Amino acid sequence: MSNVLTGPQVSEHNSRDSCWIIVHGKVYDVTEFLDEHPGGSRIILKYAGADATEAYEPIHPPDAITTNLPVEKHLGVIDASTVAQVVKEVTEEEKQRQLAVAARPPLENVLNMHDFEVIAKAVIPEKAWAYYSSASDDEITIRENRTAVWFRPRILRDVSTVDWSTTILGQKSSLPLYISATALGKLGHPEGELTITRGAANHGVIQMIATLASCSFDDIIDAQSNNQTFFVQLYVNRDREITKRYVQHAEARGVKGLFITVDAPQLGRREKDMRMKQVDDSAGAEVQKGQDVKKDQGVARAISSFIDPSLSWKDIPWFRSITKMPIILKGIATAEDAILAYEAGVQGIVLSNHGGRQLDTARSGLEVLVEVVAALKARGYYPDPKFEIFVDGGVRRASDVLKAIALGAKAVGVGRAFLYAFCAYGQEGVERAIQIFRDEFEMNMRLLGARTIDDLCPEMVDAGALGQHIVTVPQDNLFNSTYQPLQITKLKL
Amino acid sequence: MSNVLTGPQVSEHNSRDSCWIIVHGKVYDVTEFLDEHPGGSRIILKYAGADATEAYEPIHPPDAITTNLPVEKHLGVIDASTVAQVVKEVTEEEKQRQLAVAARPPLENVLNMHDFEVIAKAVIPEKAWAYYSSASDDEITIRENRTAVWFRPRILRDVSTVDWSTTILGQKSSLPLYISATALGKLGHPEGELTITRGAANHGVIQMIATLASCSFDDIIDAQSNNQTFFVQLYVNRDREITKRYVQHAEARGVKGLFITVDAPQLGRREKDMRMKQVDDSAGAEVQKGQDVKKDQGVARAISSFIDPSLSWKDIPWFRSITKMPIILKGIATAEDAILAYEAGVQGIVLSNHGGRQLDTARSGLEVLVEVVAALKARGYYPDPKFEIFVDGGVRRASDVLKAIALGAKAVGVGRAFLYAFCAYGQEGVERAIQIFRDEFEMNMRLLGARTIDDLCPEMVDAGALGQHIVTVPQDNLFNSTYQPLQITKLKL
Amino acid sequence: MSNVLTGPQVSEHNSRDSCWIIVHGKVYDVTEFLDEHPGGSRIILKYAGADATEAYEPIHPPDAITTNLPVEKHLGVIDASTVAQVVKEVTEEEKQRQLAVAARPPLENVLNMHDFEVIAKAVIPEKAWAYYSSASDDEITIRENRTAVWFRPRILRDVSTVDWSTTILGQKSSLPLYISATALGKLGHPEGELTITRGAANHGVIQMIATLASCSFDDIIDAQSNNQTFFVQLYVNRDREITKRYVQHAEARGVKGLFITVDAPQLGRREKDMRMKQVDDSAGAEVQKGQDVKKDQGVARAISSFIDPSLSWKDIPWFRSITKMPIILKGIATAEDAILAYEAGVQGIVLSNHGGRQLDTARSGLEVLVEVVAALKARGYYPDPKFEIFVDGGVRRASDVLKAIALGAKAVGVGRAFLYAFCAYGQEGVERAIQIFRDEFEMNMRLLGARTIDDLCPEMVDAGALGQHIVTVPQDNLFNSTYQPLQITKLKL
Amino acid sequence: MSNVLTGPQVSEHNSRDSCWIIVHGKVYDVTEFLDEHPGGSRIILKYAGADATEAYEPIHPPDAITTNLPVEKHLGVIDASTVAQVVKEVTEEEKQRQLAVAARPPLENVLNMHDFEVIAKAVIPEKAWAYYSSASDDEITIRENRTAVWFRPRILRDVSTVDWSTTILGQKSSLPLYISATALGKLGHPEGELTITRGAANHGVIQMIATLASCSFDDIIDAQSNNQTFFVQLYVNRDREITKRYVQHAEARGVKGLFITVDAPQLGRREKDMRMKQVDDSAGAEVQKGQDVKKDQGVARAISSFIDPSLSWKDIPWFRSITKMPIILKGIATAEDAILAYEAGVQGIVLSNHGGRQLDTARSGLEVLVEVVAALKARGYYPDPKFEIFVDGGVRRASDVLKAIALGAKAVGVGRAFLYAFCAYGQEGVERAIQIFRDEFEMNMRLLGARTIDDLCPEMVDAGALGQHIVTVPQDNLFNSTYQPLQITKLKL
Repeated sequence: MSNVLTGPQVSEHNSRDSCWIIVHGKVYDVTEFLDEHPGGSRIILKYAGADATEAYEPIHPPDAITTNLPVEKHLGVIDASTVAQVVKEVTEEEKQRQLAVAARPPLENVLNMHDFEVIAKAVIPEKAWAYYSSASDDEITIRENRTAVWFRPRILRDVSTVDWSTTILGQKSSLPLYISATALGKLGHPEGELTITRGAANHGVIQMIATLASCSFDDIIDAQSNNQTFFVQLYVNRDREITKRYVQHAEARGVKGLFITVDAPQLGRREKDMRMKQVDDSAGAEVQKGQDVKKDQGVARAISSFIDPSLSWKDIPWFRSITKMPIILKGIATAEDAILAYEAGVQGIVLSNHGGRQLDTARSGLEVLVEVVAALKARGYYPDPKFEIFVDGGVRRASDVLKAIALGAKAVGVGRAFLYAFCAYGQEGVERAIQIFRDEFEMNMRLLGARTIDDLCPEMVDAGALGQHIVTVPQDNLFNSTYQPLQITKLKL
Repeated sequence: MSNVLTGPQVSEHNSRDSCWIIVHGKVYDVTEFLDEHPGGSRIILKYAGADATEAYEPIHPPDAITTNLPVEKHLGVIDASTVAQVVKEVTEEEKQRQLAVAARPPLENVLNMHDFEVIAKAVIPEKAWAYYSSASDDEITIRENRTAVWFRPRILRDVSTVDWSTTILGQKSSLPLYISATALGKLGHPEGELTITRGAANHGVIQMIATLASCSFDDIIDAQSNNQTFFVQLYVNRDREITKRYVQHAEARGVKGLFITVDAPQLGRREKDMRMKQVDDSAGAEVQKGQDVKKDQGVARAISSFIDPSLSWKDIPWFRSITKMPIILKGIATAEDAILAYEAGVQGIVLSNHGGRQLDTARSGLEVLVEVVAALKARGYYPDPKFEIFVDGGVRRASDVLKAIALGAKAVGVGRAFLYAFCAYGQEGVERAIQIFRDEFEMNMRLLGARTIDDLCPEMVDAGALGQHIVTVPQDNLFNSTYQPLQITKLKL
Repeated sequence: MSNVLTGPQVSEHNSRDSCWIIVHGKVYDVTEFLDEHPGGSRIILKYAGADATEAYEPIHPPDAITTNLPVEKHLGVIDASTVAQVVKEVTEEEKQRQLAVAARPPLENVLNMHDFEVIAKAVIPEKAWAYYSSASDDEITIRENRTAVWFRPRILRDVSTVDWSTTILGQKSSLPLYISATALGKLGHPEGELTITRGAANHGVIQMIATLASCSFDDIIDAQSNNQTFFVQLYVNRDREITKRYVQHAEARGVKGLFITVDAPQLGRREKDMRMKQVDDSAGAEVQKGQDVKKDQGVARAISSFIDPSLSWKDIPWFRSITKMPIILKGIATAEDAILAYEAGVQGIVLSNHGGRQLDTARSGLEVLVEVVAALKARGYYPDPKFEIFVDGGVRRASDVLKAIALGAKAVGVGRAFLYAFCAYGQEGVERAIQIFRDEFEMNMRLLGARTIDDLCPEMVDAGALGQHIVTVPQDNLFNSTYQPLQITKLKL
Repeated sequence: MSNVLTGPQVSEHNSRDSCWIIVHGKVYDVTEFLDEHPGGSRIILKYAGADATEAYEPIHPPDAITTNLPVEKHLGVIDASTVAQVVKEVTEEEKQRQLAVAARPPLENVLNMHDFEVIAKAVIPEKAWAYYSSASDDEITIRENRTAVWFRPRILRDVSTVDWSTTILGQKSSLPLYISATALGKLGHPEGELTITRGAANHGVIQMIATLASCSFDDIIDAQSNNQTFFVQLYVNRDREITKRYVQHAEARGVKGLFITVDAPQLGRREKDMRMKQVDDSAGAEVQKGQDVKKDQGVARAISSFIDPSLSWKDIPWFRSITKMPIILKGIATAEDAILAYEAGVQGIVLSNHGGRQLDTARSGLEVLVEVVAALKARGYYPDPKFEIFVDGGVRRASDVLKAIALGAKAVGVGRAFLYAFCAYGQEGVERAIQIFRDEFEMNMRLLGARTIDDLCPEMVDAGALGQHIVTVPQDNLFNSTYQPLQITKLKL
């Protein structure tokens, strides 16, 4: 790769017949790769003979191109001085976005996780919002994650000091939650997942690094401070050697837990994301009948074709053979599979519906938790110090976390809330989010009468309604149209 | 019928005393039929002495006039050159409709069945929309068809290949669904049901031909290609000879299943449809007290007076005697009748509320399915390779289909989704709908951990809430008026 | 009363010290009655020395003044020619009302009972609407009357003819419902309850005459035709002699059933009605602290002070002793009281919450029906040909009636639907309402597979959810504010 | 404290280095207290060297400053004539508020408790509304207080006289409710809690005095008339001597019951209140990173730092030792704690979620009541004449009260309804509220068939749905977007 190329050399290769692009200062021949590109050839051809870094960066793992392209297509480095600088026009959307950035309220005015989401939506590109916020099909499951467990608080216990710290997979954690993996952080903030790394380090919170993080794995680990703890999330590659290298590299760099995603043999159809992709496309060219349909698949599917749908229980021993890290299966959704996981000898499971982004009308992690704990207890499998249960999905409040723990979870994963926090305010947003959680933990534990995490118990919650998926009788529109609601009194203003 | 008549000859018979009309190039004397016309005499008199084909075509079975009128009233053929061409004025509604046709998004932007409905609504005449979309009474049942069954997905099964093909009544089907019968397709698209025939042929999907199709039965069969399979839906005529001829003709032409509609001794009161009819009428003449009330019955009732309300279990052996086709009863709504059907020796049943268009507050097919499967199993009647259970109503997603199959159905009927697809885009719409279903089946089966249709089982769904017809306590309007909802943070824009 | 007085004579008595008024051509001295008037003195003083008929008529039983005022205060008849004619100014509200009357759709366009209500609301005075439509407290119960019983229809029964006629208390009825008593019909239509009498006579439907009808009892009976049947509703007077005379007069005039209202020892607080009364008042005079509070009680309470709150089970034998008419207790709300009623030897009960106008959060008649039938059956009291159970409240559709009958009711009372029908279109509205019900009965019985009323049985309905008074968990406003609903596709218009 | 100081002397001490303020005519050196002030130093510094009374008064207990500041910091009295009078500018908000005061409807037009709330909202400062109306977190619990218990009314009982008076802790009460403690009344009305004292005295209703009342305890007791009864609510101070003095003083002044708040070791995060505080602050100074976070805590937390979070069951005997007043624990939320309370020998409990202001998703008092009564009965603890159960939260109607009593409560606490009543109309509002309750009690008891409070029994209510915390399945937005609701008929206007 010591070969040095110039802009004019590259720009000659600007067609489907010969297509070179520049990414991160290096030149690649992607001609033969065009038809294999999960995101379709059109998006690459837009940058044929030119620098594609800006489009490439936020939606690819940093090493995607080097991994997918044979070495002989790595043509050399570009002489930057020879590349014509493109004057980028600031779009109207971008101007609005920058106004919104300036209009953000002071950070201390952010009172809860929802506030971050509101601000993030205003300050990130529409495409990022579509990708982050989308869920599968009718987005039933993502909303079902808001469940109705009620508290049964105890009174007259001395709660002058309350302590919500815990351990997760044997690692100290200042909060009974970890920051779960979310992909493509740079779509929403130029520093991406590093904002979490730096913020979490200051508060003793554990970060789970995503396979599809937009910062490279090593950049994140390199930013480690305060001896902070990392977990890693794994999408298993069709090429197990790549997976093996990734896992062993993670272990070598000190990662303390391997969370294997098992609910995503294929990434879900997320229509918000798919519609946004169409907007992009329709700007480029008129649509023709019979055209390649891959282009309407959205960001999610474009980046995930490497995931192996053949992954099965038979692979677990192999994982056990390549690493000493605790192995956790992320995405368990039934008691049956929780039992299989326990019997397969893994160290934990995450009950999850993937934030509502995979199978729509899958149940919430909290509902599954009740079923799983009962089934494991019935078999004498739980509690077991060597097997931890986690839950994720829809957490917005410390109270959500405390309910899961009371029902038997060890800790809870929080993903999107932190994603929106850094999109809105970078590292400081992450720290403010942690501070709000801390404040809420203190308040809620006092009001619950729980002095430590160990005080949380099933009797502190009423989860009786968790499994009731009620659809109410459809509205009687004619009756409702004629019924005139009662009016409150009016002032004579 | 070799008699040739001229326009001027016909136009002399333009009154209630002598009323001739031209339909499909032939002349009929309908004077004595005026008072028997289910749609009222007024609409016929509008075309007295003139060509009524355009009004006749989309809302009558092609042979309605020849069947209903004695042969001596078939006066002859018209000499087309002698008929004055009416310059048709393009109405404002029609102009809007044509603008909408031009404004349709590219077909690939259609992501789900709902999109078709939105577009169909914009591009078809209001009258067609009223007829297609209407349901009975308060339209409770049509919405109840949206039910709440949840998935219990299994993980870590090798789902690199998934196969959702199946057989229906012994016929191969590339999808576990068939395109169910809907009436009067030409109201919404000039090619009517033929768009389905052509689209289905390209993808191995089975079409059920409706008695009230606007294309003639033979035109549809003649369009057959790729050895495609047809079923036929039957409204039983008061004149059983007509029914016998229809059934035996269908069998002779290779139809593979006879679906006898048993939930429509009379077609329902559908108020959207009835109101639309009024709009038509009120344009025509002032309304007078005591006038013939038939005119406010809507399209549905106008076309259905031939249906025999005396049809009963006693007729089943007769059907068995006239055909070797499998006989399926369409419109079963209770376990009791499912048992009677099994004991009557038919080959299958369709659990259905007729798309919400017949008895309002009838239950959804999915809810009835659970009751029926349990009752048949309790008697040792099910499973039985010679008896298949189908469900229809409200299907919009592959996930709806998979839930029904998991609960015991062999396949699912989908009617309106395909109707809207061809209204919006003709044959290409039908093919796009099939493609979307296919994409969703692949996704959902992978995420469910089901490699084939046989893997679907009751444990994959949580149907516990299906029978709960909850009406919530009426809103407390005063409290709600005074309670001020929490506000999210605001940007200073 | 042969004394003849002149306008000028009367107009001298126009103050609180001496207050004469003219009603229906007769002169009364109401000076001493001012403070006893249930509606407050102010409204009377507005007409002191003048003709009060127009204000009096629609809200008083016709004989209210003669009954309540001692004979010596009946001063004589007025010489009409001596009374100055007041030129009545047409108010803006009245002008709007008259425009609305002219804008009513043709009667045949009315498709259901809700349509009548919409039109009635537009064409009657606001005060009438407030009185008719109001219910008690938070108006929870009036809406709870809309319940969720589902049908289990049977198929393949010969329904070529269906018959929905029945008997009620031994009287033939062409429909399985009777027109229940509603008060003060002239508020909404100048002919008041007589419109029902005439319309019902033409169709064999039974009318229940209200104690508080605005037409006099005898005027209604005098309008009898076709040998039509009447029932009478009774509010029991503190003065039992008045009640006795009323009951025996009714029997003498051929009334076939005595419905004693037992759920109204006092008429409910109905805030819509109360607020409307305030509007009236505030136009009249400024409000002063400590003023008589009676004036804010609304029409309902103003007209009902004669009702005896001491009425109890001990009174039943007395009623039995004064009449041979069947006695029915109207307003039973629990199984316990149904049992007491049966044991008290009455001929029937009406399960009712008084149209939601009495005790708010009382249950619906249909819910009580299930409880009552079960309790009576358990004691062997029911079925009993000498004891009939009726239900009323919220009926808008034939399907509502059929559900009640399937669950054990003999017939159903329908009040407000007919009230709105005659408010909107007079007698013709009543007849159209009957026609719509008839049409719906035919349709629904065919689709249910019920050939006669006797075919209706509990297995034809699913009433499992009737008793579930679900309040859903309050909305999560922050989550809902941030969640962005999925959007359907857009046309490029 | 006989030292007399002048305005100029005080105004020299106007900085963080030396900060004197005037409160209620006395001068205090608060320099060293600045950093300890629960509301932050900034708000004090705003008044450094000046008179802070107006800001101090409505949000501090009257003796807060003397209690918290060492005696040596009490510098002396101010010579009022030497203080420059500040011309207070009337803000736009204040002008609007005064217009609203003038636009209030006449008191008699207020028909229910909601009306008071509407008016209060319009006539009190926004900050007061934020403090009064706010509840914790997502404000789920405050709305859950609206529950669904239904009546089962009995008929044909002689209800000519009904009596709803009762005793509470042995004290006569004209209503089966007491006016519960709410804090900081002067924020909403200049006379604060004294309006309640005076109004309650006229009608034999018991007032509970709040620890955080804005009128001093003695001012309230001094206003006693008609030998009226008081209870007192207690927040227990970290300094038990202060608490002891407060309790013993209350007993000495004749208070008849001590209600110890046990559900507030810390006051809740109430976001409406917190956001309002931010508005205040942001007017004052730009916000800087890392600044003291205490300032965003809202009024609630600013005033409550003295509350002792270590309060526990061990403290109960000490309370017993310092007073003979009945001791009631206010804020019990589970059967377990109700049993502990009974066994601890207290005289009563209040089942409460603190008006939804403490732990969000805690259950309603009414729901807890059913659980508690069942548990106490099972142990033979209840009924017991020496142990009374109360409920509070969300009461707006007499019917709410009657339901609680039917289910086993002795009486019910009503706080906010009276708070809003006096905010809207002062003492007269309180009296009107009592009158409305009285009117509703009469009506409801008659319609229930309950002649006295003792007639109320569990069979009069249907509370079966109380514990069902149903979350309905999330809306299907696409289906709902495409489904076109039925339309009622239109007038041709």
